[in-house]
Amino acid sequence: MAGSSFTLNQKLKEDTAEVTRLGLSLVLLVNDRSVPWLILVPRRSNVREIYGLSMEDRAVLIEEIALASKIITGRYNPDKINIGSLGNIVPQLHIHVIGRFKNDRAWPGPIWGSAPMEPYGDKELKAECSVLKEAFRQNPKTSL
Amino acid sequence: MAGSSFTLNQKLKEDTAEVTRLGLSLVLLVNDRSVPWLILVPRRSNVREIYGLSMEDRAVLIEEIALASKIITGRYNPDKINIGSLGNIVPQLHIHVIGRFKNDRAWPGPIWGSAPMEPYGDKELKAECSVLKEAFRQNPKTSL
Repeated sequence: MAGSSFTLNQKLKEDTAEVTRLGLSLVLLVNDRSVPWLILVPRRSNVREIYGLSMEDRAVLIEEIALASKIITGRYNPDKINIGSLGNIVPQLHIHVIGRFKNDRAWPGPIWGSAPMEPYGDKELKAECSVLKEAFRQNPKTSL
Repeated sequence: MAGSSFTLNQKLKEDTAEVTRLGLSLVLLVNDRSVPWLILVPRRSNVREIYGLSMEDRAVLIEEIALASKIITGRYNPDKINIGSLGNIVPQLHIHVIGRFKNDRAWPGPIWGSAPMEPYGDKELKAECSVLKEAFRQNPKTSL
């Protein structure tokens, strides 16, 4: 059911770079080097809420969330993983998976809406996406 | 594996009232009448992150999240559901499922950390928990 009509929301596209594609989700890296911040976007059309996915897709999604959490933990060793599905601004269903640190700009509050974001350099952003892509490749869902 | 040693974090206990128990999670209602705000606490010991649950528990958890989202939507008709697992303050794994409104106190920002909360009256809190408990009873997981 991966809709050929799936298109990524423009704001998500502007704020991120693509890391990889998992079974269900497109994985994006938010262009903010001060926190390791992935976004999973299920490749389904016209879904705003988790309950708008099929039960099968939901089971895959939570495994992809767990995998993204483990990869962030392995690479950045954060104090806590924060997971969120808000969508108050961007309606397309997307799930944030973020490594939080006790000295980051918003701790212990939520990171969403806290300013300022700190962009990666262009080369740094590409390099980080490559490293993360390789981590996903080495950790297929079934190895969780 | 429902640990007999499961105990609810004291802060979660203070801020909420119990609605019901699902297959995996204890369901709590946050004592804030300005937003419909449920918290799911998987009844497992010593788990801080989603990836600390078994794959089987994760599959149940996301169905319970979807069910809680549908129940909030059915009763309160919010503009958006917000889901979050933060744990920066309370380490015990717990998942927020919140109905958000375009005129609520924090829209479109996250509700976490936004003040002030507006407590229910004692009778009102009990009555709301009863209504929600009945909604969960009428919507077993398998009917999703």
